Amino acid sequence: MKKKIEVCLSPELIGLYDLEGKIVVVVDILRATSVMVTALANGASEIIPVATLEEAQAFLDQGFLCAAERGGAPVEGFPLDNSPLNYMNDSILGKPIVITTTNGTLAITKSTAADQVLVGAFLNIQSVADYIVSQDKDVIVHCAGWKGKVNMEDTLFAGNMVELLTASHDLACDTAHMALKYYQSAKDNLFETVKNSAHAKRLNKLNIIKDIEFCVSHNVYDLVPKLEGKKLVLANI
Amino acid sequence: MKKKIEVCLSPELIGLYDLEGKIVVVVDILRATSVMVTALANGASEIIPVATLEEAQAFLDQGFLCAAERGGAPVEGFPLDNSPLNYMNDSILGKPIVITTTNGTLAITKSTAADQVLVGAFLNIQSVADYIVSQDKDVIVHCAGWKGKVNMEDTLFAGNMVELLTASHDLACDTAHMALKYYQSAKDNLFETVKNSAHAKRLNKLNIIKDIEFCVSHNVYDLVPKLEGKKLVLANI
Repeated sequence: MKKKIEVCLSPELIGLYDLEGKIVVVVDILRATSVMVTALANGASEIIPVATLEEAQAFLDQGFLCAAERGGAPVEGFPLDNSPLNYMNDSILGKPIVITTTNGTLAITKSTAADQVLVGAFLNIQSVADYIVSQDKDVIVHCAGWKGKVNMEDTLFAGNMVELLTASHDLACDTAHMALKYYQSAKDNLFETVKNSAHAKRLNKLNIIKDIEFCVSHNVYDLVPKLEGKKLVLANI
Repeated sequence: MKKKIEVCLSPELIGLYDLEGKIVVVVDILRATSVMVTALANGASEIIPVATLEEAQAFLDQGFLCAAERGGAPVEGFPLDNSPLNYMNDSILGKPIVITTTNGTLAITKSTAADQVLVGAFLNIQSVADYIVSQDKDVIVHCAGWKGKVNMEDTLFAGNMVELLTASHDLACDTAHMALKYYQSAKDNLFETVKNSAHAKRLNKLNIIKDIEFCVSHNVYDLVPKLEGKKLVLANI
C-alpha cells in the first residue's frame, strides 16, 4: 500500500499535524537547510541546531564553531554566516557546527515528535527522496517559511518532493496538491522565480543572488542529514 | 500608485498580517461564504455571523432563522443547512439569517481589525474585485481553510482575486504569487480540481458534488456583502 505525503507550509501550523511515527523533512532553502547540507558535505562532523542566540552564545563561549542569523543577516560576534558558499573550505573539516537561524532551526525544534527528522534542500533532494522510499513511512514536508508566513522557495521544495514521491506516496492533503502544481508551474524557471521572492527582495544584495543560484541547484550532494538526539548527523544511505 | 494585495492562507496565520486601514476579503468557498452570498442574493435582509453554537442557539431561541454547521455537516436543531442550493426560495425573503460554521465565521471574527471586511465567493468574485478597485485600498484575501489547515478551494479563490486585481494591485507577498500560479494551473478545470479536494473527499456524498458545481460558478450574483458592526449587509456598488 502506498504511504502518505502531507505538506505543512509554516511552523505556525505544524501543531495541526500528527507527526507520530512519520518522517518530517524540514526545509529552509534560503538558507538554513542549504547551509546545513553544504556544511556536512564539506566535512563538518555534525550540526547542532539551537533555537536561541543565548544557546548559540553558550556554545561559542565553549569554543564551538557557530553560525547565527536573524532577519536574514549574520549576527555580529559569530564567526560563521548564513551563506552556503562560505562552507566550502577545510576550516570546518571534522568539526561540529552550531547553527541558530530565524526560521529553519525553529522548524527543526518543532518537529521532534516525529519518528525521524530529516533536513532537505534542493542540493540533496533526490537523496532525501530515495531515503524516504527506503524507509517506507508516511512523510510530512515542514516548510520553515519566514517568521511564520508561507514563502515560495520552501513551498517549491515541498512540491518537488511530492513530485519525486508520487510513485510511493499518496497526496494526503490539499497542500500537497497545491505545492506540486505550484512547483510544476515554476520548475523550468526556478532561479528566476526565487529571485523574485519576498526573501530575495528583502535582502537585495549581490550575495543573496549568488546564494540563490546555488541554493536552487539540484542534487549537488548525495547525503541525508538526520536528527539524532539534538544533533544532525549523516543518515546511512 | 498601485495598491498592494496579500494572501493569508489560514485564520491561524492572520495575526501575522497588519490589517489596519486595509480591506480584508474573507472566503470559505465550501460553503460558508457561498451560502452568505446566495442568501443575500435571494433576499435575506442581512447575515449575522457568529463564532459559537451557543450564540447561534440564543438567536434561535429568539425566533431568528439560523444555520449551523460543524465538521462539514448541519447541526441538529437548526432549521437551515450549509448548502447554498437551499437558500434559493422565498422563505428567507426580508429576514436576517444567523450563521455559524467551522471555519468561515471564525475567519470573519478574526478580520475585524481591518478598515472593511467583505465576503467573497466565486459566485460574486468580479463584483468584489470591482468594489475593491473603486475603494483604492490595500487588500488581504483571508482564506478560511479547514480547522486551521490550508485548503485548495479558498486558495484558488485567492489566486483568482489576485489575477483580477493585477492591474491595480502589486503582489505584496510570496503567497499572492503562489495562489495566482496555482489558480492559473487549475482554472480551466476548476470543478474537477475542487471535486478532488480534501473537503469533497471528507463529505463523499451526492449533495457536496452538486454544491461544488454551484460554488465554483463565476459571477452568478452581482453583490458585495460587507460587515457593518456585527452584520453583513450589501455594500453600495
